Amino acid sequence: MISQVLRIAVDTPSDTAMIEITETVKQAVLESPVASGVVWVTTTHTTTGITVNEGLPDVEADLIAMLRRFAPTEDPAYLHARWLPSDGAMAINSATHQRAALLGPQVAFPIENGSVVLGSRQCIYFAELDGPLRRTYLIHILGEASPTSTDLGESAQH
Amino acid sequence: MISQVLRIAVDTPSDTAMIEITETVKQAVLESPVASGVVWVTTTHTTTGITVNEGLPDVEADLIAMLRRFAPTEDPAYLHARWLPSDGAMAINSATHQRAALLGPQVAFPIENGSVVLGSRQCIYFAELDGPLRRTYLIHILGEASPTSTDLGESAQH
Amino acid sequence: MISQVLRIAVDTPSDTAMIEITETVKQAVLESPVASGVVWVTTTHTTTGITVNEGLPDVEADLIAMLRRFAPTEDPAYLHARWLPSDGAMAINSATHQRAALLGPQVAFPIENGSVVLGSRQCIYFAELDGPLRRTYLIHILGEASPTSTDLGESAQH
Repeated sequence: MISQVLRIAVDTPSDTAMIEITETVKQAVLESPVASGVVWVTTTHTTTGITVNEGLPDVEADLIAMLRRFAPTEDPAYLHARWLPSDGAMAINSATHQRAALLGPQVAFPIENGSVVLGSRQCIYFAELDGPLRRTYLIHILGEASPTSTDLGESAQH
Repeated sequence: MISQVLRIAVDTPSDTAMIEITETVKQAVLESPVASGVVWVTTTHTTTGITVNEGLPDVEADLIAMLRRFAPTEDPAYLHARWLPSDGAMAINSATHQRAALLGPQVAFPIENGSVVLGSRQCIYFAELDGPLRRTYLIHILGEASPTSTDLGESAQH
Repeated sequence: MISQVLRIAVDTPSDTAMIEITETVKQAVLESPVASGVVWVTTTHTTTGITVNEGLPDVEADLIAMLRRFAPTEDPAYLHARWLPSDGAMAINSATHQRAALLGPQVAFPIENGSVVLGSRQCIYFAELDGPLRRTYLIHILGEASPTSTDLGESAQH
């Protein structure tokens, strides 16, 4: 069994951004010795998310609008809005923690014959929710170098 | 290590539907040679989700109502509402992409002694958010044929 | 390959609570023979969640407020509000099922050199949404005892 953890840096361009990383993930799997197994994409932060959606700019913009609707940037009810001694700064990002909880921190996809198995419209996104910042996410590849996968094909159901 | 990717077709009955697939997943694991490992259930689409909940029709209906409340089907602010050259059709499904982001595309459960480890009320759902369509989800089984699992039992905490 | 499933009991203190379990997960991985692989943290219930966020009490309180805003505890439109023969009780917890769907039932993190790979602010939470109750979550550790991980280091991107 091989288990590789790659740390990928990304400089995010703005406070909120859907950054497509599908090609980076595909390429990492192609360059890995793993032929059969799984790849996880996982953020290392609590005000970012990893999500999957269709790679269209207007879908991305509507997802960002949804996150703002879900958790407004400012709300007088937020408690996480105070001087934070550990940061030496005001905490003003409660909304971004809530948006991160909605999106979740990771996704996983199978590796078959050395390639990621993705649906034809599935794109992987690093979602910046509290940028711009230098961020890091993990590409974790686990499996075997020799092909062990058995594609059992499509079977009708329901 | 064994890694098997099954592609399961499902014909969804309506525009939005919670389709329980627990038995399909359990059966696939039973028929697999893997005795100890993990199973992922992953959609291949961007307007569907995979989620876990209790198998009660009124819970399912309330979850669908929640998704409609979360992302209304129509909203004049949606940008993904235009002629889409790549599809040769109008894009009118921004809400379904947002609902898919909320539910997420997958879940994973352990395999122990050849069976999926699920809580007594945990049912796995394929959530159709933009049907009716023929859809495909993956059952990805990874592990060993011989039992390697060590059930360390329940330990009190907190 | 080693695959271990630990069942961890937790007595939750109130109807809704963010219970940090990071140290329990870290310790389980340290005590496991797995040096290289993955750890999943998965709930066995449908009215709880597993989520990742920053370990600050005001962030936790704002997340709970977000869940209440997302799915109000009572709503006359909820259908899951009736006598439930299988439970011998009234079903009055539709909101908690919806909140569980938002948070999701699990997270996974890499294991490298015998330790969990977590971002510096990432804390793992068991989210009680319908307590107080005795609950169980799984710590599932899968991998190899010998170090197989290759840390390929940080590479700039974007």
